[in-house]
Amino acid sequence: MNASRHFDPKDFRQALGRFATGVTIVTARAPDGTPVGMTANSFNSVSMDPPMVLWSLAKNARSVGAFTQAQQWNVHILSNEQEPLSNRFARAGEDKFGGLALDAGIGEAPLIPGCSARFQCRTAFQYEGGDHIIFVGEVIEYDRSERAPLVFVKGGYALATKLSGNVSTEPGADVGTAPYSENLLGYLLGRAHHQFMAGFRQILDQLALSDPDFYVLSLLAVRAPLAGPEIAAHMAYTGIDVGSVLLRSLCVRGLLQADDEGRHELSATGRDAILHVMAAAKAREADVVDQLGELESASLRNGLKALITASDPGLPKLWA
Amino acid sequence: MNASRHFDPKDFRQALGRFATGVTIVTARAPDGTPVGMTANSFNSVSMDPPMVLWSLAKNARSVGAFTQAQQWNVHILSNEQEPLSNRFARAGEDKFGGLALDAGIGEAPLIPGCSARFQCRTAFQYEGGDHIIFVGEVIEYDRSERAPLVFVKGGYALATKLSGNVSTEPGADVGTAPYSENLLGYLLGRAHHQFMAGFRQILDQLALSDPDFYVLSLLAVRAPLAGPEIAAHMAYTGIDVGSVLLRSLCVRGLLQADDEGRHELSATGRDAILHVMAAAKAREADVVDQLGELESASLRNGLKALITASDPGLPKLWA
Repeated sequence: MNASRHFDPKDFRQALGRFATGVTIVTARAPDGTPVGMTANSFNSVSMDPPMVLWSLAKNARSVGAFTQAQQWNVHILSNEQEPLSNRFARAGEDKFGGLALDAGIGEAPLIPGCSARFQCRTAFQYEGGDHIIFVGEVIEYDRSERAPLVFVKGGYALATKLSGNVSTEPGADVGTAPYSENLLGYLLGRAHHQFMAGFRQILDQLALSDPDFYVLSLLAVRAPLAGPEIAAHMAYTGIDVGSVLLRSLCVRGLLQADDEGRHELSATGRDAILHVMAAAKAREADVVDQLGELESASLRNGLKALITASDPGLPKLWA
Repeated sequence: MNASRHFDPKDFRQALGRFATGVTIVTARAPDGTPVGMTANSFNSVSMDPPMVLWSLAKNARSVGAFTQAQQWNVHILSNEQEPLSNRFARAGEDKFGGLALDAGIGEAPLIPGCSARFQCRTAFQYEGGDHIIFVGEVIEYDRSERAPLVFVKGGYALATKLSGNVSTEPGADVGTAPYSENLLGYLLGRAHHQFMAGFRQILDQLALSDPDFYVLSLLAVRAPLAGPEIAAHMAYTGIDVGSVLLRSLCVRGLLQADDEGRHELSATGRDAILHVMAAAKAREADVVDQLGELESASLRNGLKALITASDPGLPKLWA
């Protein structure tokens, strides 16, 4: 072999980081009984028959002695709720296992609960791999859960979601002449928003609440009392003109009450109304999340937050 | 070693599938010059110094002879636009390289363009791995692009997006007593939709178009002529009552025209108005996508489509 190339480590890592991975914690027990474990994304499946997986460990890692001597180790594929655990096991020197209630495994290696999948392995091979050792293990036991897996890509944690099909286009439709298509975010946002609200519009209608009524009551359910201009500032981005007419009408209908300084808050009737609407909205949400799945829902929330942050006109914080 | 376990292959694969991966195509050239290549997600980085990566290949793969004899092979980390290429190279027996314009590499192995990253490797080791051979290669050259990588998890392709922070909650805020929080999809959808529209509300105001006006003109820009009840059916989910009053008002203002059978379409003025709004909406979209990034935008569109499909009240298809 020729002399090895010396790439810029940061740039080379960025190139490698284009390959998305899950995140695992690999654990073993040192000869003296001390539990060892570390975060690794160098895991992969190798063989179906016999069932084998591999991962690699830096030769200068503190736990290298424990792993090379261990006959058995466990790989934990982390769920998207275990990001803190990933961070904890990625740092050196902490009491990584403190406070963790371990499960009983087939061997001595620590078995961590709450993962997307776990593989209890017996060392099959240890191979030379440059500045790392490649551990190949035979899987003796495994289990899995429905918890959505954590993803690492381009140097950061991520959520992965399945690709969806088209919703408002017939197969083979030619949208070439239409002035917009469903790929316009504005169309998708509007349709998703309206369809979501359609799920509890019945109760808005029963309570004779228009969309502007609903938005004002929702705002005051979180933050009150607020003066008219403060309410208008919170609502400005909706394009709804929250003027004195709207607020006075809500007062006349007994949904709001105003103090001497013109600050508004919900009346008992108003609070009762918005709690009814919120119960219906939460039922709608539960129904939609049930159909979408937890992961898709989490990813959608995440994407909406990113868009809101990117397009924030400088709104006052709602929850302080 | 004891006799190996025999797991149910389907269930074992599902457990392994909890570990997200990127998708690669690995290529080499057979001794007779024939290009070979296959889709693989068993790639991983191994060593920084020397720079090394690995992947594994089934011993019964058709290309195993070519790869075991090749001194050099290339790993291509696919972008999220290369899903068709992934499918092509995952199938046996096709003319996989047909129509591909290859780049020139350091060796004979085919080098495919359009990827998120590419690694040109020299075989360093070939290791025993059960029913697979583990190929460890030293990276001689690599390159990378900003193309968003393709992800494979739980048996299907996926998009991965970075985790976003909170948008409307001050750090450490206690939202325990509020009747809802920004984690309610309904809140996020409404806020995102309104903030997006705020970016072109000025032109709606200039043209004196209300939201119901805008929705009706948008619909008729894609599908016309439509009778009043057909327009109402398309709009029902928005909660906007599209009655004859609204349509007549749009006709009186010269934005719509109706034929003798009561079917409505845009007038020249109406078409001009909606094209102006659409141009502003597309500029808004370009601005938001620029801030979010292509991948986050694609993922958000994807999530919105999933929600729209899950909550579809049975709307007529808009683009036919």
